[in-house]
Amino acid sequence: MPYVKRGGVNIYYETYGKGSPIVFLHPFSTNGYIWYFQTFTFARTNQCVVIDERGHGRSDKPQQGYAIKEMAADVVAVLDELKINKAIFVGNSIGGMITMQTNLDAPDRVAGNVIVSSGTNLAAGMPPEVMAAFQKDLAGAFGGLVEGALSAKSKRERPELLELMKSQFLVEENFPRHVFFAAASDPNGVFNWNITDRLKDISKPTLILAGEEDQATPVAANKMLADNIPGAQLRVVKDIGHFYEVEQPAAFNGELQQFVKQIAA
Amino acid sequence: MPYVKRGGVNIYYETYGKGSPIVFLHPFSTNGYIWYFQTFTFARTNQCVVIDERGHGRSDKPQQGYAIKEMAADVVAVLDELKINKAIFVGNSIGGMITMQTNLDAPDRVAGNVIVSSGTNLAAGMPPEVMAAFQKDLAGAFGGLVEGALSAKSKRERPELLELMKSQFLVEENFPRHVFFAAASDPNGVFNWNITDRLKDISKPTLILAGEEDQATPVAANKMLADNIPGAQLRVVKDIGHFYEVEQPAAFNGELQQFVKQIAA
Repeated sequence: MPYVKRGGVNIYYETYGKGSPIVFLHPFSTNGYIWYFQTFTFARTNQCVVIDERGHGRSDKPQQGYAIKEMAADVVAVLDELKINKAIFVGNSIGGMITMQTNLDAPDRVAGNVIVSSGTNLAAGMPPEVMAAFQKDLAGAFGGLVEGALSAKSKRERPELLELMKSQFLVEENFPRHVFFAAASDPNGVFNWNITDRLKDISKPTLILAGEEDQATPVAANKMLADNIPGAQLRVVKDIGHFYEVEQPAAFNGELQQFVKQIAA
Repeated sequence: MPYVKRGGVNIYYETYGKGSPIVFLHPFSTNGYIWYFQTFTFARTNQCVVIDERGHGRSDKPQQGYAIKEMAADVVAVLDELKINKAIFVGNSIGGMITMQTNLDAPDRVAGNVIVSSGTNLAAGMPPEVMAAFQKDLAGAFGGLVEGALSAKSKRERPELLELMKSQFLVEENFPRHVFFAAASDPNGVFNWNITDRLKDISKPTLILAGEEDQATPVAANKMLADNIPGAQLRVVKDIGHFYEVEQPAAFNGELQQFVKQIAA
């Protein structure tokens, strides 16, 4: 399957379908599989590009280099390879950060943004004991995080999601430990990345979907994005946690379809 | 990502985890993504191998060559490449056929079988107008098939599955039309493959999971397998159609885990 090599790092992607392109960017510690319920469904009307971000899944996992800016440049490299001029970006969590960064670094490549449960400057809201807990018991600490990242309804009705999210984090071939610590300690990585002052420079139509029960990137973190990105629309979704696209895929797809139509109009 | 080339055809696979190997084989017109809720979860304790069968997903899609025997040989080639001596086979629908064929052709490579909604000699139960309908309106005819392949509960509670199954069938990059017609007309392909007389030669522990509401490979077709494979156990699962692993992944995983433990014991 196709890779793009950028700065010595192989970035894995898949593409299905023709039409107005949509790029899907997954959360930290997962991989492109998370868009299973979107990829093929939207490929009937759009070109769907699913990327495994560096450090994840089938992409290379360098020892260092997990600044969000690097990860955004990887995405632009994939668009270049596919000769895609502009795409709608759909990014969940760190995928949302990569989306926002691409808006700053390569605004011409972005047609619109759907940011699902994300934020900026997350470290500011993290108690210092969180990192200590990760150092001490990675699996336990992450398990607790995932528990709080799924809604009560999802845990009741889709119990496989809790196991899946814990497992993707723990399976070394998907997400090795060094990636977690390199990204977590990077001054411009997933936790420390802070573009609060630059949110005002994002100019493309933006929909922010926040799970009402998400404790990983709570509603307040998403509201802050919506308050600062000009014209951004915020939807707080009931019974959803951090992973709307797999917690309620049909409802998510309905919202995405509507957004795609608006952009095309 | 890794491919094995056999007879000029590239077969795509992924492998995660260490431990007693499990091979996952997907239904006709889908791809390895269908095991999303198994791959990473079982990779914590087992080596999970997920294959895109020829004609599907990321594997090559030759014009001809869709005999089940060819597809079983592809799987053995992947096991060879990975230096896997024996694996538990988990196969849904055509994946179950490939599993049974491997039991006949390479019994030493099989530790046990979990056959999910499958059958043999399916053409015998198909009215002649079915093929005519596929010739006339592929999307419509397949849509009807998928409607009948999902349980009422799945259609109500996981409506994304109906769209997904229809879409995977229709997205050319995943499953081009020529593959459907080449496989359907192959005298030893998905519909015409008939090992009724040889089921008695399958000697490995076999669990057959049949969805009570599956109209694609109904309970009777699965019961026939169980009645003829020595010692096979049949479980008819309530509220499930043709795709247990995505209709109720947590329950499916519980049953698979139990089977894996029995084989290990």
